[in-house]
Amino acid sequence: MTDPMVPLTPAERLAKAEQPLVDSLRLHRLYGGKLQTALRCPVRDLGDFALWYSPGVAAPCQAIAAHPEQIYDYTHKWNTVAIVSDGTRVLGLGDIGPRAALPVMEGKALLYKYLGGIDAWPLVLDTKDPHRLIQTVLVLQTGFGGINLEDIAQPKCFRVLDMLRQQAEIPVWHDDQQGTATAILAGLMNALAWVGKALPDVAIAFIGAGAANIACARLIFAAGADPGRCFMVDSQGILHSQRQDIQKRKAEFVDKWKFCQLTNREQRQGGIAAAMAGADVVIALSHPGPGTIQPDWVRTMAAGAIVFACANPTPEIWPWEATAAGAAVVATGRSDFPNQVNNSLVFPGVFRGALDVRARAITDQMCLAAAQTLAQGAAQTGIQAERILPTMEDWGIFPQVAAAVAVKAVDQGLAQRPLSYDQAYDQATTLIGNARQLTQLMMAAGLIAPDPSHG
Amino acid sequence: MTDPMVPLTPAERLAKAEQPLVDSLRLHRLYGGKLQTALRCPVRDLGDFALWYSPGVAAPCQAIAAHPEQIYDYTHKWNTVAIVSDGTRVLGLGDIGPRAALPVMEGKALLYKYLGGIDAWPLVLDTKDPHRLIQTVLVLQTGFGGINLEDIAQPKCFRVLDMLRQQAEIPVWHDDQQGTATAILAGLMNALAWVGKALPDVAIAFIGAGAANIACARLIFAAGADPGRCFMVDSQGILHSQRQDIQKRKAEFVDKWKFCQLTNREQRQGGIAAAMAGADVVIALSHPGPGTIQPDWVRTMAAGAIVFACANPTPEIWPWEATAAGAAVVATGRSDFPNQVNNSLVFPGVFRGALDVRARAITDQMCLAAAQTLAQGAAQTGIQAERILPTMEDWGIFPQVAAAVAVKAVDQGLAQRPLSYDQAYDQATTLIGNARQLTQLMMAAGLIAPDPSHG
Repeated sequence: MTDPMVPLTPAERLAKAEQPLVDSLRLHRLYGGKLQTALRCPVRDLGDFALWYSPGVAAPCQAIAAHPEQIYDYTHKWNTVAIVSDGTRVLGLGDIGPRAALPVMEGKALLYKYLGGIDAWPLVLDTKDPHRLIQTVLVLQTGFGGINLEDIAQPKCFRVLDMLRQQAEIPVWHDDQQGTATAILAGLMNALAWVGKALPDVAIAFIGAGAANIACARLIFAAGADPGRCFMVDSQGILHSQRQDIQKRKAEFVDKWKFCQLTNREQRQGGIAAAMAGADVVIALSHPGPGTIQPDWVRTMAAGAIVFACANPTPEIWPWEATAAGAAVVATGRSDFPNQVNNSLVFPGVFRGALDVRARAITDQMCLAAAQTLAQGAAQTGIQAERILPTMEDWGIFPQVAAAVAVKAVDQGLAQRPLSYDQAYDQATTLIGNARQLTQLMMAAGLIAPDPSHG
Repeated sequence: MTDPMVPLTPAERLAKAEQPLVDSLRLHRLYGGKLQTALRCPVRDLGDFALWYSPGVAAPCQAIAAHPEQIYDYTHKWNTVAIVSDGTRVLGLGDIGPRAALPVMEGKALLYKYLGGIDAWPLVLDTKDPHRLIQTVLVLQTGFGGINLEDIAQPKCFRVLDMLRQQAEIPVWHDDQQGTATAILAGLMNALAWVGKALPDVAIAFIGAGAANIACARLIFAAGADPGRCFMVDSQGILHSQRQDIQKRKAEFVDKWKFCQLTNREQRQGGIAAAMAGADVVIALSHPGPGTIQPDWVRTMAAGAIVFACANPTPEIWPWEATAAGAAVVATGRSDFPNQVNNSLVFPGVFRGALDVRARAITDQMCLAAAQTLAQGAAQTGIQAERILPTMEDWGIFPQVAAAVAVKAVDQGLAQRPLSYDQAYDQATTLIGNARQLTQLMMAAGLIAPDPSHG
């Protein structure tokens, strides 16, 4: 990696930001995708097939037929997640469909394995009909321990999540809502600590009113922010109590309409620039930039401004532009910049904990426990302007998140297999460690060949 | 393993036959199922996440959005199979439902990986409605390179297979039909060679008229057997041209009604015993035994009798009983007895070949090529009464089947990525070898722990 102490020119920064896309295309082709299967049981000789398949396999089948809950004991259901997307809102690329969405879902499965020790499989669905999406998930849930909804457009994503949470037997999570909200709340906690402000006192401008930012605002308000001091901006401008376009569709946009009432106590009107004027915090989950947020608008923010520019693949404003315009803390969704507020910090640990105690659901309280654990994790090694969150390389944080989520599920009476914090922490540590060891083993043995273009 | 030269007592044989079920239950729990995910690309440091996930992953997404067929280049679709079952006809256990079916489907995925180098994922569907099953498969096919239907009851399995073959974009295979038929035809070829009979001359009694045996008869007739000399027996007795119960449902049971016309030239009536009298071959795919076929009935067969007793988990007659009653060759579906006519010999190589040339479909001609390859494979090392087929330990046969199937697909104009025999053979050898090496590596490193009850 480039020495971070030597400042890059803007042109160098731009080239560096484009490089992952160039390399990614070449490497996806070279490796033929990112995910494969592996055994979790030994095969020593032909005799073992009599255990794992006919005739021996009849025994676990009969056990499960007699005691359905034993599916968790005799199959891999206990550790599996289906990553389900219809490809209608992929990264910042929009409705590119299920085929083009598959690289993202396969990448998600990679992260589930490597960071959470979880066996996730991508399922991209060739339908835009929310009813059919719901029915498909319900019909295939039996073989999985959890469902991760991903990159589904709003407003249908709200209904899909709500219906599945009501009807599915296993935890259902929409990562674009809950995962993103949890990561941003964690980062916000430490960014505010760095600039010496308190959550109840700050004015937050939420730029974008999609599924992610609505979930984000909901969790941040639940954590103590004052909605009346905050603004939310959609494509038609700042939300306020007279927004008739939203009122007309309030059955679809339940939370958004609620925010029309709760936020913007002063009934300010205007667009992104108006919402940012005087704000302490900008949380943007909107259109890929650069240019969605202008540096001049950052200059109008309060001293110690905090900028979360989280559009993918390109943030609403380049971090170096936001910093030059006076931002004290800048965060993006990208792993190649500092302060990545990425839901990859969240979902591996959250699902690890939820699966290990067989939680019936994943609640906002479990998300809050995860956010607090992430914030504390970064604080332990010292908060810096460019280090408000752990990175995905801070491996230790994932079992801590898992254990915090697990015990919260136990506290809330949602755990079908209760564990203590230490039990949950130890199990998560072992399973995540095994996943990393497996990858390293495959790389060392050449089963994952080295990239020939690297030394 | 027990020394095969020391004959076992009947009680010992029975105990040995029961042992896999006892061990299987314990070991399924110990290992928590049989299948997990693994990466197929390297993760060296945090920077690699920028390639495999945000922001780099946008590049393959955009490439596929522009060129949909490039999903085969940039994702794992090229090597994946969905194993789909509704659990309505699992092994010999019947309609035990999708939960209890999962151990079988997970085992199937294990075999796909270990024998075919293929990344298969089990999808057990909680519906008995064939329309909903078809719709679910169509909606989720995008992320897979092939579909393996498994353990679906007849008659709906016929319609499900036919509709999916018409409507799906990828090859669809019903292993209980095509896989079983291919394995039995291969075994039959060598069994007939052993007893010195020719396929067009023999009388075959097909016991059971389920999906497997109907597919079996169809392929064996296509390979040259004379249907008029053969009998098929269902729960109501021998099929003949006056079977009105079948005539009434001939739209559902198309092949079965056809066999009422084509088989049993002499219009014999009666049950299993009547069909077996004088027969050269019995092919039973019916109810688990022992006792479904009586030793006395074997005694009435022609000299050099061939008995395929393939019910799972327990054959229609124990092999030692059939041998004692005069059978010259006995085969079963079990891996712990000699002459396993198991579709596990077939589907890994067939799908390996089909995937490697991106075949649009898997045809009867491709099945025939696979059967001939299997039969030749066993013949090369010398046919014996207890060795009419390769075993799953004859690893070399799987790439041979793959290459034979691949070139047949090319010959038939079904290959979207044509390969020569040598190219297909080399690719199959590498991919299957990698899968075995991965398993051995995991066992050696303790990531698949040894069974503590073994030495």
